[in-house]
This record gives sequence, C-alpha cells and structure tokens, in this order.
Amino acid sequence: MEITANNPQMKSWLKVDSNSDFPIQNIPFGVFITKDDIITIGTRIGNYAIDLCALQQLGYFDDLHLSEDLFMQDTLNDFISLGRNVTRQVRNRIGEIFDIQNTTLQNNVSQKETVIFNIDDVEMQLPVAIGDYTDFYSSKEHATNVGTMFRDPENALLPNWLHIPVGYHGRSSSIIVSGTEIKRPQGQTLPADAKSPVFGPSRLVDFELEMAFITTDANDLGEPVTIENAEEHIFGMVLFNDWSARDIQKWEYVPLGPFLAKNFASTISPWIVTMDALEPYRTTNTEQSPEPLPYLQQEENNNFDIKLQVAIQPENTEETVVTNSNFKHMYWTMIQQLTHHTVNGCNVRAGDMLGSGTISGPTSDSYGSMLELAWKGTKPIQMNDGSERKFINDNDTVILRGHCDNGSVRIGFGECKGKILPA
Amino acid sequence: MEITANNPQMKSWLKVDSNSDFPIQNIPFGVFITKDDIITIGTRIGNYAIDLCALQQLGYFDDLHLSEDLFMQDTLNDFISLGRNVTRQVRNRIGEIFDIQNTTLQNNVSQKETVIFNIDDVEMQLPVAIGDYTDFYSSKEHATNVGTMFRDPENALLPNWLHIPVGYHGRSSSIIVSGTEIKRPQGQTLPADAKSPVFGPSRLVDFELEMAFITTDANDLGEPVTIENAEEHIFGMVLFNDWSARDIQKWEYVPLGPFLAKNFASTISPWIVTMDALEPYRTTNTEQSPEPLPYLQQEENNNFDIKLQVAIQPENTEETVVTNSNFKHMYWTMIQQLTHHTVNGCNVRAGDMLGSGTISGPTSDSYGSMLELAWKGTKPIQMNDGSERKFINDNDTVILRGHCDNGSVRIGFGECKGKILPA
Repeated sequence: MEITANNPQMKSWLKVDSNSDFPIQNIPFGVFITKDDIITIGTRIGNYAIDLCALQQLGYFDDLHLSEDLFMQDTLNDFISLGRNVTRQVRNRIGEIFDIQNTTLQNNVSQKETVIFNIDDVEMQLPVAIGDYTDFYSSKEHATNVGTMFRDPENALLPNWLHIPVGYHGRSSSIIVSGTEIKRPQGQTLPADAKSPVFGPSRLVDFELEMAFITTDANDLGEPVTIENAEEHIFGMVLFNDWSARDIQKWEYVPLGPFLAKNFASTISPWIVTMDALEPYRTTNTEQSPEPLPYLQQEENNNFDIKLQVAIQPENTEETVVTNSNFKHMYWTMIQQLTHHTVNGCNVRAGDMLGSGTISGPTSDSYGSMLELAWKGTKPIQMNDGSERKFINDNDTVILRGHCDNGSVRIGFGECKGKILPA
Repeated sequence: MEITANNPQMKSWLKVDSNSDFPIQNIPFGVFITKDDIITIGTRIGNYAIDLCALQQLGYFDDLHLSEDLFMQDTLNDFISLGRNVTRQVRNRIGEIFDIQNTTLQNNVSQKETVIFNIDDVEMQLPVAIGDYTDFYSSKEHATNVGTMFRDPENALLPNWLHIPVGYHGRSSSIIVSGTEIKRPQGQTLPADAKSPVFGPSRLVDFELEMAFITTDANDLGEPVTIENAEEHIFGMVLFNDWSARDIQKWEYVPLGPFLAKNFASTISPWIVTMDALEPYRTTNTEQSPEPLPYLQQEENNNFDIKLQVAIQPENTEETVVTNSNFKHMYWTMIQQLTHHTVNGCNVRAGDMLGSGTISGPTSDSYGSMLELAWKGTKPIQMNDGSERKFINDNDTVILRGHCDNGSVRIGFGECKGKILPA
C-alpha cells in the first residue's frame, strides 16, 4: 500500500510553523489525557493534539473496519499489534482529513471542538505498555570511547563487538514519558582506593543519547524473524534517554551487566514517529568489516539520517547544547538488532522497545554521554551560564531533540526531557 | 490476620495422598483452562484443581467483598495486587471450605461438579503476566564454582559479590509454564582456537536450578522498599529453570551480561505457593561476612528450607536424578534482593518475578547446573539408562521438583519440566 501521507506537497489546514517537527507528513501516534480527564490515542499536527477516538466516533474511519474501541485505550499496543498495513491505512486517512483541500472537518466547527486540542492543554502519557525492553550497544564510536577509557585504547572493542549487535535486557517498569522528574538514585559505590563500598546518592548521573524502536507482534517463541522480514515488525521510533549512574555501574556491573545503574529511570519522547514517516530519510549503512554472519547480512540501506541534539538546562537559566550527533552513525541497523534478538527463538511482542545504545558521532562534540563529552571528568563542559559540568547536577533538565530534514520536509520527534531532583 | 489455613491438624474432605505436594495446608494459586475451554484462577488440593471463579459465583467469598470478576481472569496479577492481607483471607476461606468438618460444598454434588476438576483434565497456564523479570546470582557455592572454573580458584568471587546481591534483567516474553517444549536455540559461538564465530545450534544447553518469587505492587518510582517492609511485598514462590546455552553465553556476555544465552526460554512451575504456606519452613540465614551495608541488614530469619531436586528424563526411558539441593543454601535472602532492587528507586509491580540464581549446595552432588555437576564437561554424569550427560541432549526432559517437610506437613511445588527439541 502506498504511503500517501508522506506526499511532500501536502499542506494541512491546521497551522504548522515552518520549523515544526510535526507537519502533516509526520502523523506520529501517542496517548494523551485532556483537561476533561479523557484518555485517548491521538496524533499531532503542528501544535495541535488530535483525538483519534473522537475522529473514529464521528465516522472518519468507518470504511477501515477498525474495532470500535481501538483508540479508546491508554496504550497503543492493540493498535500496533494490527500490523503496519493497518497503521499505514490509518495514517494515510489522517493525512486526508487534515489536508487543506479537504473541507469536511475543516468546516465543521463543533466537530473540530471535539477532535482538536491545543498541545499545551493535553498531558502526554507513556505511549505503550512496554512488555520487554532491550538495550543495544551499537555505536562503534561509543563502544570505542568506553573501551579506550576503561580498558585498552589499542583494543578498545571487545572481540565479539564486530560480530554481534551486543545487547542486554533492561527494566520496563521504570520507563517514563518525557517530562517526568527523576530523583537522583542512591546506591552502593566503591570510592577510589577503598576496599569496601559506601552507600549514598550517585555522584555521577549521566544521560545517554539514544533512540529506540517499538515493535509489532513479531514472532512466536522458537520462530526467528529473518533479516528479510524484520522491517515489517518495526512500528516506529522515539527519542530515548537511558539515564545512567556511572559510579553505581562501575561497582555493580561485573559479571552480569548494568542493573541499578540504569533501572532507576529511562525517559522516552511521547510521540512514536512511524517508520513510514521516516522512509524518506533512509540513508547508507555503515560499512561492516568483517562481513557479518549470513543471518545478519542486509541487502538494502537500513540506516536513517536523524539529527540528534542534547541540551542541559540548569535551574532558572538558559540551556546549553552539549552535543550534536546523528542516528546514521549506528554501526548495526535496527533490522540487524531485531534479527539477532530473535535468532535463538526469543519472541518479540507488540509494544516491546529496543534501544540503540548511546549514539556517539566521530568527533568530540558529537558524543552521546557526559562520560565521553567530559572524558571521564577530565574535560569539563563549559555551560552558557558560566558553570561547568562533568556529569548532571541536581535540578538540571536534560533535553534530547531529534529531527530529519531533506530540504523538502522536516519530520521530528519533539523533545525527550527529564529533570534530576536531589536524592 | 492469623494464617488459619496453615493449621497442621486440618484435613480435607478431598482425597490427598500422604506424599502429595498439595495438602489442604498448601492452597497455591494458578490459572487453568478446563476441557470446556473456560479459563479461570484456581487452586489445587491433592490431585484436584479447584475453580475459584465458580466458588465465587456460588457465593463462597461473598463476605470478603471481592470484585465480581476477580477470579475470571487469565492471570493472577489483579488478585496479587490486592496485597497479602486479602490473598491471606481468600486462602483461609478456601481452607475452611475444603476442611473435612465443613459439609456445605462437601455434600452438594452439583456444586462440586462445577468447582472441582481432576488435575489431569485441566491445562495449566502461566500464572502471571510477568511485567519485569530479574535474575539474581545469590548462591555463594554457585558463584564460587563458576569463578573457579572460568577465572581464578583463589579469587573465585568478584569483589562486589559479598556486598551486593548481584542481579540483572532477564526476558519476560519467553517465560513459559512447565510442560511447554523448547527448541534448542541457535546462535553465534566461538569454537576453541577460532578467530571468528560460527552460527548453529547451541551444543551446550544447560538447566539452572532456581526458585523465583512473585511480587505484589511494591513501590512507586523513586520510593525504595525498606528491608523492614520487603516481606509484605513477596506474594509467593515457584520453581524456575533458567535454561542456558553455555557456548552462546561465553561468546556474547562481555561486557553487558547474558542475553540470547538465556532468553530463548525460562520455565516456571504453574502453582504459586504463597509465602504464608511456606511460613512454617523458615530457617536460619546464611552467615554474612563482611556485614552488609545497613540498608541490607536483616533482623529475622528469612531463609526457607525447601528441598530441591533435578531429574533428567531421556526419551522413552527412566529418569535419573542428577542433583539434590536446597533453597536454604542461598547467601542473600529474598528480602535483601527486593530491598536492593528498589534502593535506587526502581519500581516493582504486582506480578514481577525475581529469580534466585542457580542454587548450588556445598557438595558436588548438590550443584544446580550441568556446568557444575559435570564440571565443564570433565566429569560426565552417569545416567540410569547407561548413557552419559555433560549437558542436555535433544529430547531430554528436565524436571525440577521442590518441597518442604517438617515431619508434620509437606508443602510442595509439584514439577517444573521442559523438553528440549532438536533445533
């Protein structure tokens, strides 16, 4: 089915600023609560939140034969589980409804009052119930930086790294939506030169600039997804801040990986931008050498050109942009990650989330974490307000932003932000 | 509230063999499907499955003021989230209904037909929707054995092990109920002396003898559970086989921990035995030296004397018991694990599952995995049918069993079994 919603010529009758992340060609999906305490699945155009449940009740999706309460949900899981053909139909239809040449809703004042809300008048919710969350470690620059700092600059990458999209399981319960505040975690750390650990607030809270993708129902237990079929099981993407407490991590992570250093909170942006919307921004894969094993070999370009930025906003003062990176720096692609994840028969369900791992670019101003940007605290970052940062201070807000722009249409993710409160 | 259901004098009017795991003092909770395709929450006495939804509809729980559809569910999550006070009331009531001195249901033939099923006529389901699953590594003997085999016998335990109940996140989607067959996983492994990995079926599939506990709604994000309050958030326990592919694990697990080596399947027993039922089997904690940090210090005895056994049953021949262990060998207790898990603010929800890690005893016939029992393949296990095992062969069924016995009452878990099919 054609992705008619991507037509770059299309304009909406809703006002959209030229630098908006949400033109009519985006049509992301999310969940919000209105001032009247109604929870619904919705989309966004410009600075308007659109209630898809209301649109359905007004008959705008009648010929798509969707189940009656499909949008009257507090998560997108059921919708996503219908598969990309159905979600594509819905997205195309939304494009038609808000197309400037379509006057049906445009000229119906009372219907518009039911359907359209100012974005500031709704409260965004976590868009999916995340059954399982997996985090990968798929940026070669990031893995190299970490290996250089903590092991051996000459052998920064571990032997498996170029063969496997290395990943591990994370915590679903503590994945929160942008805007949710986070208490600085407490835990055990081992002070330098000490023999025994101490307990207290982490002193090295960091962000990790990541993106994550949300899956459809991909496979039954025991039935791997092939690399040829992986793409149809990726519904869309979000910005993802995989908050990390570096001092807790250092003490706990051997031999079974990060645990309390990560699971105190992980923040995602509220709107899931569909892979359909991102299709025009597909770009060349990073060259992989050695060649991966056959089950991981991909024919097409499966990388995406998504400009990423992180800013730190101290309390009551202006923000400082601390890095500019790009999703295209990924070494392993999303379809390789999903294929690898299921090659042993592991089942992936609608609403599962797979994180990219920290996305660092090749230059020191494009690294994806304070650990790398301030190089283990040795090169503090200068802030616009005159202060310095090695890691994240109490009452700092960290803001991730991401968008694609091909000169014709800009598609973005909005913001993924979170504030660190004192312990 | 008193746990009246534990009264060792009580007898049921339902027939219970003397060596049954399910006397009237057990009253575990599970989910089953009847031959008429009805799914319900139930309990078990002797070899009878009891439909709690039917009991509720017949009015047996009326004065407990439970929600109408509480047992008409395909998971125990809502029931568990009511907290231990309510689940204790229900368990006490079930004890009363099936007490030999109570003739109400006993003498009502038509009601009995609605409520009671032969255990062979129902199909057990996964009892909970597991939101998050965490696995610990809390048996000192197991950690020492692994450290001795793969690192340094003189420094077998890593520096953090005696300070932290080391844990990591596992996969929820592939947790399956006893009896579900499992395809041997495929994946990448690095052959001895090779420089590049190969792809194929794992040749070193192993069991891990574990137990796991299921939590109630424990805490909100950012609000740790204290060691004093941890116990009330543990609903009950199951047997747990944390299947592992040792060759995949060896290649993939550095630096972020096990992933595909574990997430192809994890098997649990179908009946959750409540902590109330296990209360009489509480036993002394393992001595901890050095003393843990204050947040992990426990006043009471929080270990449990649960006899554990693993048998391997090759196709078409008798089983061989390969190990006898005991849950009391655990170094870190469940309340220490739960307290540690939340000390950074991580939230734990009703139906989350926390695994013990492999439970190895002090002697070589009490180890909890083939890796240890056959000591990395150097000491093959003799089977009763004349064959040998270093790991698990195709078409082997692995059976975990567990029960408590204080000479007065035996409380058990039944079986946790799974068969490995060819890749």
